[in-house]
Amino acid sequence: MDLTLEPRVVGGFRFAGVAAGLRKEPGRKDLGVIVADRAAAAAGVFTTNRVKAAPVVVAQERIRRGRLQAVAANSGSANCFTGKAGIKLAQNSCAALAAEIGCAPGLVAPCSTGVIGHLYDLEKYRAGIREAAAALSPNRLEDFARAIMTTDTHPKMASARLKLGGAAVTIAGCAKGAGMIEPKMATMLAFVVTDAAVRPPELRRTLRRALPASFNAITVDGDMSTNDTLLLMASGAAGGRPLGGRDLAAFDEAVAAVAGALARELVRDGEGATKLVTIEVRGARSAADADRIARQIANSPLVKTAFFGCDPNFGRIVMAAGKAGVAIDLERLEVRMAGIRIASRGALHTEALAAAAAKMKEPEFGLTIDLKLGKARASIMTCDFSYDYVKINAEYTT
Amino acid sequence: MDLTLEPRVVGGFRFAGVAAGLRKEPGRKDLGVIVADRAAAAAGVFTTNRVKAAPVVVAQERIRRGRLQAVAANSGSANCFTGKAGIKLAQNSCAALAAEIGCAPGLVAPCSTGVIGHLYDLEKYRAGIREAAAALSPNRLEDFARAIMTTDTHPKMASARLKLGGAAVTIAGCAKGAGMIEPKMATMLAFVVTDAAVRPPELRRTLRRALPASFNAITVDGDMSTNDTLLLMASGAAGGRPLGGRDLAAFDEAVAAVAGALARELVRDGEGATKLVTIEVRGARSAADADRIARQIANSPLVKTAFFGCDPNFGRIVMAAGKAGVAIDLERLEVRMAGIRIASRGALHTEALAAAAAKMKEPEFGLTIDLKLGKARASIMTCDFSYDYVKINAEYTT
Repeated sequence: MDLTLEPRVVGGFRFAGVAAGLRKEPGRKDLGVIVADRAAAAAGVFTTNRVKAAPVVVAQERIRRGRLQAVAANSGSANCFTGKAGIKLAQNSCAALAAEIGCAPGLVAPCSTGVIGHLYDLEKYRAGIREAAAALSPNRLEDFARAIMTTDTHPKMASARLKLGGAAVTIAGCAKGAGMIEPKMATMLAFVVTDAAVRPPELRRTLRRALPASFNAITVDGDMSTNDTLLLMASGAAGGRPLGGRDLAAFDEAVAAVAGALARELVRDGEGATKLVTIEVRGARSAADADRIARQIANSPLVKTAFFGCDPNFGRIVMAAGKAGVAIDLERLEVRMAGIRIASRGALHTEALAAAAAKMKEPEFGLTIDLKLGKARASIMTCDFSYDYVKINAEYTT
Repeated sequence: MDLTLEPRVVGGFRFAGVAAGLRKEPGRKDLGVIVADRAAAAAGVFTTNRVKAAPVVVAQERIRRGRLQAVAANSGSANCFTGKAGIKLAQNSCAALAAEIGCAPGLVAPCSTGVIGHLYDLEKYRAGIREAAAALSPNRLEDFARAIMTTDTHPKMASARLKLGGAAVTIAGCAKGAGMIEPKMATMLAFVVTDAAVRPPELRRTLRRALPASFNAITVDGDMSTNDTLLLMASGAAGGRPLGGRDLAAFDEAVAAVAGALARELVRDGEGATKLVTIEVRGARSAADADRIARQIANSPLVKTAFFGCDPNFGRIVMAAGKAGVAIDLERLEVRMAGIRIASRGALHTEALAAAAAKMKEPEFGLTIDLKLGKARASIMTCDFSYDYVKINAEYTT
């Protein structure tokens, strides 16, 4: 498998991203479309927030049949807390794209991200759709990726190519963050397309398998968006019969790798983030225990500000671990910060803290907590908490 | 009842606070003692963090019998993650005070706050205890309150006086924050003493009743300390028979008022806090539902940075409410920010946002979310998330 953070052409799909005037900043891309040559197998996961935006409600309903031909995604407005008018707006938005490309409106999934509580202008949207339809090209995934950005500092893409049963298969995707990130069941907005031939039930399973180590293993601020959507579409344009057996397993692995790369990019570009930290909890009695501890550490403001300050603050780590409600034996616990063992067998290795602090200056490092109680493990990617997180979020307005 | 944020003399108790050299800053008070003339009725609540500091383990055990004669509390070291040596240190610390005042060591409760993973110097501690014992005075509650401060910017005290059955009763207390605050079952360190005559079982009930609207209703950063301790001691020096019936109810109310005032001061002085915000959730189907939503809002970094930016960001509020996992009907929801209705009946009142933003410049305001689904309610006091929170926590070292 050949994984990269660059876009790639994927047989059967075209993309576009245009500036439709939905955002305040004039000329900034804010409307993206993905169009398949014909209805593609599709699977999706969505936010588990009890408050769901209108496009989530519509997309969730439409993906049930396992087929989509297009996606219409905008930034500038989340179309959330917009009642029946919001549902109608999402439906009309899809209908506009369906009319342009000549497919049933039910085959178009809507996605929105941006400010909550506002309806975007449908006329501007329709004009944007016409422009986007005219611009469609297999080479424009990056334009699409740019159109869905909000506080992201750059577009995030990843792609993989591999041989499956003799044929070359491509998987490419993009995602946007950068705040309200603790997905649990999905991410902000992420789209992955492939030319592999995969039937909808298998595609759903592929998506579920890709989640635990990708979009479900990251956090920026512990907040969960109302609009989180991850869509996976397979055109089958690479030819051959629908994947099964060993080929399907290899495909699953490649999709998971693309999803993992996108998730990692989301955290790296988290609001105000200066460091990517992978929290690994090992030696737990169960994976659920390990996950709970890893998340408490990954979301603790005190731990995250210590990352920012390059401070191997053992006290905050053990405090955060302890509030997970999972039994911990302090006499066994071993903690490694950026590869340096800072605590073990009930003792803090104060002489090792300076070396750990020096290593924490790197833009990327790991924090490993070995409970030495069992064999289960979990890992969560998180970022630090900086002045810029406060700046971005105190100044980004309603 | 006459409630104030000033200290008061409480019959039967003396206090002291000295600089024992346990902290890095020379001359800063770091060791405080409370001594009762004779064994007093006592009740306590402690952190629910699975990682408990040595003094918590020792104090929890000692308070079971319902009697304490003294408290020895230090800052500069949390005596946590210190294994058996930490337990021994806490016991020796209590023994030092017991020897000075001539009581059984088991009648002294230890409390520590500060850096985790270090043992403080017992010899310096003993010298400090001797100095403190010599300085004991009914007028020195403020010295004690200063000795337990860490990142607090000022000592926090509250007292109340009321007539019970003809006798004047005084209740006085102090507390320290200012980070790792989301107590759930206790607070950082808080001490309340009274000259009322109350038997231990009633005193325990008084303490439990005081919690929901005080130390259990606040959050600074959602983090929970390993050392949280709240102690309540009653000397009976005011005279009369142990309280019961209506007098006990009035006493409970006064203790709750003192605890509430202290809890409020903790949030007001939260790390980097510039605003005190009371989040009230009304109209819920159950108090547990209301509490869950209020806590999600109170702990959301996105909501807290919006408070700092005086931004009535409805989207973040509804996002945080939605992730509580409680059913919400957006068509009924009503939200008031700083007294201004910004959303109701499924619509955001954009014309009201400027007025709400202006009111958010006040140092104290309320955010009310009425779910209109039932009659239950809950309220949580929180503070905003500022540059200074990041500064304090990125620079405070291990």
